[in-house]
Amino acid sequence: MTLDDLPTPALVLDRPRMLRNIERMRTRLRRFGVRFRPHLKTCKSYEVARLMLDGPAGPATVSTLKEAEYFAAHGVTDLLYAVGIVPAKLDAVAAPRARGCDVIVLLDSVAMAEALAAYARERGDAMPALIEIDTDGHRSGLVPDDPALLDVAEALSRGARLRGVMTHAGASYACRSAESLAAMAEQERAGAVHAAQRLRAAGHEAPVVSVGSTPTALSARALDGVTEVRAGVFVFFDLVMAGVGVCTADDLALSVLATVIGQRRDTGWLITDAGWMAMSRDRGTASQPVDQGYGLVLDVDGAPLPGWWMHDANQEHGVLARRDGAPADLARFPIGTRLRILPNHACATAAQHAVYHVVDGGRDVAAVWPRIGGW
Amino acid sequence: MTLDDLPTPALVLDRPRMLRNIERMRTRLRRFGVRFRPHLKTCKSYEVARLMLDGPAGPATVSTLKEAEYFAAHGVTDLLYAVGIVPAKLDAVAAPRARGCDVIVLLDSVAMAEALAAYARERGDAMPALIEIDTDGHRSGLVPDDPALLDVAEALSRGARLRGVMTHAGASYACRSAESLAAMAEQERAGAVHAAQRLRAAGHEAPVVSVGSTPTALSARALDGVTEVRAGVFVFFDLVMAGVGVCTADDLALSVLATVIGQRRDTGWLITDAGWMAMSRDRGTASQPVDQGYGLVLDVDGAPLPGWWMHDANQEHGVLARRDGAPADLARFPIGTRLRILPNHACATAAQHAVYHVVDGGRDVAAVWPRIGGW
Repeated sequence: MTLDDLPTPALVLDRPRMLRNIERMRTRLRRFGVRFRPHLKTCKSYEVARLMLDGPAGPATVSTLKEAEYFAAHGVTDLLYAVGIVPAKLDAVAAPRARGCDVIVLLDSVAMAEALAAYARERGDAMPALIEIDTDGHRSGLVPDDPALLDVAEALSRGARLRGVMTHAGASYACRSAESLAAMAEQERAGAVHAAQRLRAAGHEAPVVSVGSTPTALSARALDGVTEVRAGVFVFFDLVMAGVGVCTADDLALSVLATVIGQRRDTGWLITDAGWMAMSRDRGTASQPVDQGYGLVLDVDGAPLPGWWMHDANQEHGVLARRDGAPADLARFPIGTRLRILPNHACATAAQHAVYHVVDGGRDVAAVWPRIGGW
Repeated sequence: MTLDDLPTPALVLDRPRMLRNIERMRTRLRRFGVRFRPHLKTCKSYEVARLMLDGPAGPATVSTLKEAEYFAAHGVTDLLYAVGIVPAKLDAVAAPRARGCDVIVLLDSVAMAEALAAYARERGDAMPALIEIDTDGHRSGLVPDDPALLDVAEALSRGARLRGVMTHAGASYACRSAESLAAMAEQERAGAVHAAQRLRAAGHEAPVVSVGSTPTALSARALDGVTEVRAGVFVFFDLVMAGVGVCTADDLALSVLATVIGQRRDTGWLITDAGWMAMSRDRGTASQPVDQGYGLVLDVDGAPLPGWWMHDANQEHGVLARRDGAPADLARFPIGTRLRILPNHACATAAQHAVYHVVDGGRDVAAVWPRIGGW
């Protein structure tokens, strides 16, 4: 099977680029002497995950209990479920734990800490939890100086086990310079370490200080006090990350294979069969200095077609156009021509597909790797 | 099973609202004496589709060959594949045709008409095609007066069979008044009928004049010369359609069940476990006069919570906030509280889920209906 005969639209994974991205992250974190706990929410595939992990057992991070179940079934037994836990989900955490998988949960309130401690006492399993710390105001967590931090730790101690703190500086996606990225990484580090120190000063064990996002992981100048780093999207990278400045378009390992299904001589458009269902509705570059539309256009071999972008999308139609004002050389792209589109957001685009078609630079499909979805 | 114990996030389908939406469309089209060929790209579920169809065999419209295969396997044998065909996809059209399923294809170029005719001659199957007409400039098709229209028909006649014309006034989504919607419906009708008349005047049979989009189907004042109407999103409706003015938020049959996983007293936010993975990245209301964020908030019973919206989303986190300036009554929504979110775009949100959880107004889950995805 090659990219010339694959039914389209289809998700293509350039393995050499992915391996290069993984090596870059691992080399960088090795230098700081911190553990790497890659976030598997981007790939949702064991075949990809095993290339990122320290060893078969992990550690790793997941965003759903479905991912936890799937990766645990593949032998990854050191898992952080990095979305706030609720009482109704505790059975789904306890089940893999009873089979020897160390699923760690996350919370940021006294109410949930009390509920976890009560549940853990009843199960006779001192379930481990991290307290979520908010270091950038973008989502969940307690600010590092929140007095409630010690109350949460106290509540946990009555049956569960405080493992430490976790923060995610998602606001780093809005950074636009190496300086601001480094500053955000330092803010993330300092906030998490400060929270852990408060816990320790109050007599709690808090061995883990977990930080991370792809931009901060690639921009931190110091990680003193941090014990582990998480990152996910780096494995494929995407146009949003290129816009943030932590990679270039040439690092992108994921693309969507599309077929030209129509031409518009009046508007200079090429119509393809990769619409938003294949790309996702993600328009993350719209708020960046360079809006990339729904993506940038490559030929079937992966060479950029400068000046072309995917400027609009319907459910199963992509509209490609030149954005540089040059005339659209439509004759070069007859109906049936295959092209590839680099996505805005790898997590969102990959989620629209059931499998990765792995290529080693050329058109031959070397492997087909399944991925999971849902909850 | 009830909405109180379903794992979240989960897709909820309010059956009475759906049936009301279907009845409204069918009653309206019956008045015009046109055939209804519902678009199944929104529901992608036979359990939903059978409630929309004239009979077990259809007619129906699909957006992918995977949908064609799935619905054909359920006995729907009159199918229009309403995305431009390419040579590489003809085998996947011929296969169900050989099993007695009348799959009709769409095209808009002489090159593709020649390829189809040659393929059809070789198979000994005069495969039927509609010529796509562009009546609003938003995507594919030939404008009604394009001289190439007759060349395409001529090319088809050498082995394939011209069935007629099809147009889709997707630009109707940008209309904001009953008058502009009616005008767009008339533009869609007149353009398609004109193209069919040109074909007939040149001696071609063109029995089918197929038009449609949910807004125009609900706004047309006359459908003279039209033989069939297509529409899809009407079955569930969504906030984009409410913004266009063809339904109200109370008509929306689809919502996403979410659980409160965190509270932020400082910002007045509720954090839920329904992020963009559960809602899709669709922000279709962002370009409408009233931006609904990622959706509007209901309680678990489906009653609106006025003033609350989903104002931001991460992959597995939703951020709910008040947008009316009133203080956020967080104490009303402790961790574990279940809420429902009305989506911007039903096609995109449903595509993020594997099943519908059907309710008849209350919290009891009366049925679980699978849906398909992919290509």
